[in-house]
Parts: sequence; C-alpha cells; structure tokens
Amino acid sequence: MKKQVPSTVIRRLPRYHRYLGDLIKAGYVRISSRELSEKMRVTASQIRQDFNCFGGFGQQGYGYNVNALFKEISSILAVDMHYKAILVGYGNLGNAIANNVNFDKRGIELAGIFDINDNVIGTKIRDIEVMHMDEITNFIEINQPKIAILTLPKSEAKAVFDLLVKMGIKGFWNFSNMEINPPEGISIENMHLGDSLMTLCYKIKNDLQ
Amino acid sequence: MKKQVPSTVIRRLPRYHRYLGDLIKAGYVRISSRELSEKMRVTASQIRQDFNCFGGFGQQGYGYNVNALFKEISSILAVDMHYKAILVGYGNLGNAIANNVNFDKRGIELAGIFDINDNVIGTKIRDIEVMHMDEITNFIEINQPKIAILTLPKSEAKAVFDLLVKMGIKGFWNFSNMEINPPEGISIENMHLGDSLMTLCYKIKNDLQ
Repeated sequence: MKKQVPSTVIRRLPRYHRYLGDLIKAGYVRISSRELSEKMRVTASQIRQDFNCFGGFGQQGYGYNVNALFKEISSILAVDMHYKAILVGYGNLGNAIANNVNFDKRGIELAGIFDINDNVIGTKIRDIEVMHMDEITNFIEINQPKIAILTLPKSEAKAVFDLLVKMGIKGFWNFSNMEINPPEGISIENMHLGDSLMTLCYKIKNDLQ
Repeated sequence: MKKQVPSTVIRRLPRYHRYLGDLIKAGYVRISSRELSEKMRVTASQIRQDFNCFGGFGQQGYGYNVNALFKEISSILAVDMHYKAILVGYGNLGNAIANNVNFDKRGIELAGIFDINDNVIGTKIRDIEVMHMDEITNFIEINQPKIAILTLPKSEAKAVFDLLVKMGIKGFWNFSNMEINPPEGISIENMHLGDSLMTLCYKIKNDLQ
C-alpha cells in the first residue's frame, strides 16, 4: 500500500510534521482537523484525505492526539530510522547546509563531511572535521551511512555518485544540478534551486500567490 | 487561461527550460516529443499535455523548433521580464545562494545584498557590495526590485517581510522557514530544505526512486 501513496501527499507530510512539532511545543494535546486546517491553511477534507492514505490515524469526534499523530508521521517519514548522512563538497553551499539544516529533528546524524580543498580539510563544523575525499571509502565501510548530500560541482558529481552507489549509499540529496536516472534501489531528491526561482517569477508575472 | 495551469505543470517548466537550453548548446535545431521524452525521461504524452496548457507550441510532424520552444518557455517563466532581486541575510545560506544560483540565466539581476553584521557589510560578491539594512528602503525606492530572497533568521523574517511588502516587493523566495500567508498580490516560494530531506528519507525507507 505504501508505494501507492501519491507523491503530492508525501510532499505535504513534512509540513504536517513541522506544524505538529510546533503544536506540541505550544502545549497542545488534542486538535480537530478543522483547527489544524485553519492553522495550516489547507482544507479539513484534504487533511483527512492525506491521513487516510496511511490509515487515517484514528480521529474520533474529539480530534487527533497531537503527540500520537506526530509520532506516526515521524515514523512514516523515517525519523526513527536514524539514518546516517555524509556531505560531499564543502564549498559555500555545503557549508550552508551543514550549518542551517536541523538534521537531529529529522532523526538524521550528519556523520562525515568530505572535500578535496586543503583550505577546508581539517576545519570543524558541528564537531565534525572535514575530511579528504581519499578517506571516504574507508569512512563509509566503517560508518555505513545511508544518505549522501551532494554539494559538489556538477562536473564531478557523476563520478562521486557512481562510487557512492557502489559503496552502498541508498539515498542522495542532490544539490549538484546533475541530472541522474537513479538505478534500481536508489532514492534521489533533486534540489534545483534555480527551478524554484523560475517558478516564483512565473507566479509574479501571473499574479499568483 | 494562464491562471488555470496546474501548479504541477508550472513546476515542470523550469526543467524543460534547462533541457532545451542544453539542447541548444548541443546544436539541436529540431526535436520530436518522442526524442525529448527519452532525454527527459517523461512520457511523450505528458510533454504534449504540459505544452497544451500553453497552446501547444505548434509541433508539426517534424517536431519542435528547439530555439522557438526555448523562447516560449522562457517567456512563460518571465525570463524576459528582467526582474531585479535583493537578497536579505548574508550568512552561510545567503552567501551560498549569491554564489551558486545562476541569476542571469533566469533573466534576473541580483541588484543588492543586505545584512546587519558589520563583518560582512562592505564585502563584495559578484561586484555587489553587501549593504547595511538601514539602506534597504532607500535602495528599493531607487532600484525598484520586484523580488526579495529571504535568507535571514526566522525570528527576524516577518518584520522584514512586512516592510518589504510595504515597499513594493512582489515576490519572495523564502529560505527563512517562516510560515507566511501572503497578502493579495504577493507571490511566495517557500524553500524548506528540511522538508526535501524528509521526503528523501521516506523514499529510502519505502525503496522508491
């Protein structure tokens, strides 16, 4: 069943996760789909439809249990898998991601950072020392990360991708602008920042929110 | 008609734009929807459906004129509007975006960068000097940018957003993780990096590409 959940629904789950996390912090114990709908500015029927893709999370007349719902969505989003990640390419973008993304909140451990630039190798970020690419195969063998964040130049991305697939990396968060047809068993999320910027320009031109 | 184009179609346009740009560089003059479909790994019928949302771009038996198609899609994506943009918040992420995003290719001029940190004010990136936030209203009055890139902390984002709306900014590329219900006439693209990372974890857990 899981594999048939539409990708548009999947893409909404992290937002539910964020909102529910905020509700817990704000002390909420229960919330109705109507209330959640008002807060998140989506229709209550969409919320119910989305949740029904995963069995409905058992809302009774008095609403959802916020903690239980948060836990279920966390589990669907694999927060409890505690995947390890490595980041490859510690330029501006790699630096920004290592600094700005809250990995813990997603159950992910950023375990290693790699580059080939002597100016950054040995520097530390979040207690992780940037290592030379020469050490990456050894590191993967020992630490068995599942995720690689590709923040290296497009020209070098394909060779690194192929190596990492061979080494057993299962998921790629791809900021390199390299277009890839992932082999069987490999997951990929492509982050083309420029695409989002063009979508914004379309919205501005057409006066869309 | 434009306003009825589904957002899923809009979100695919920048990818067409990239591919067509690459085809032009590679010397292509014409391409059939079948050939384009193979290159982009989407079905030919989806390509035709997507293009039909904009009138079809007149493919005859011998395929699309690559240059003409690129120009039409560029125009739909407002590349010819030559919007000016400002970037607010020159930390790691602002730095990465200023350095890595190809604004020219999207017809956009990154016109000004603002921060409140004395350590970065006066530094230059792409010939743009980072200015103090105190200068932002004056700069907007003179330069009339349409787009603001928000790469400042969430805690400060709402106040800056409100100011910029008042100053006439029409579109926001929002990396601040602030949730906003944009007022009438304001366009927004929210970039929640963490949401994409969670989607990747879901894909890994469920063995999806």
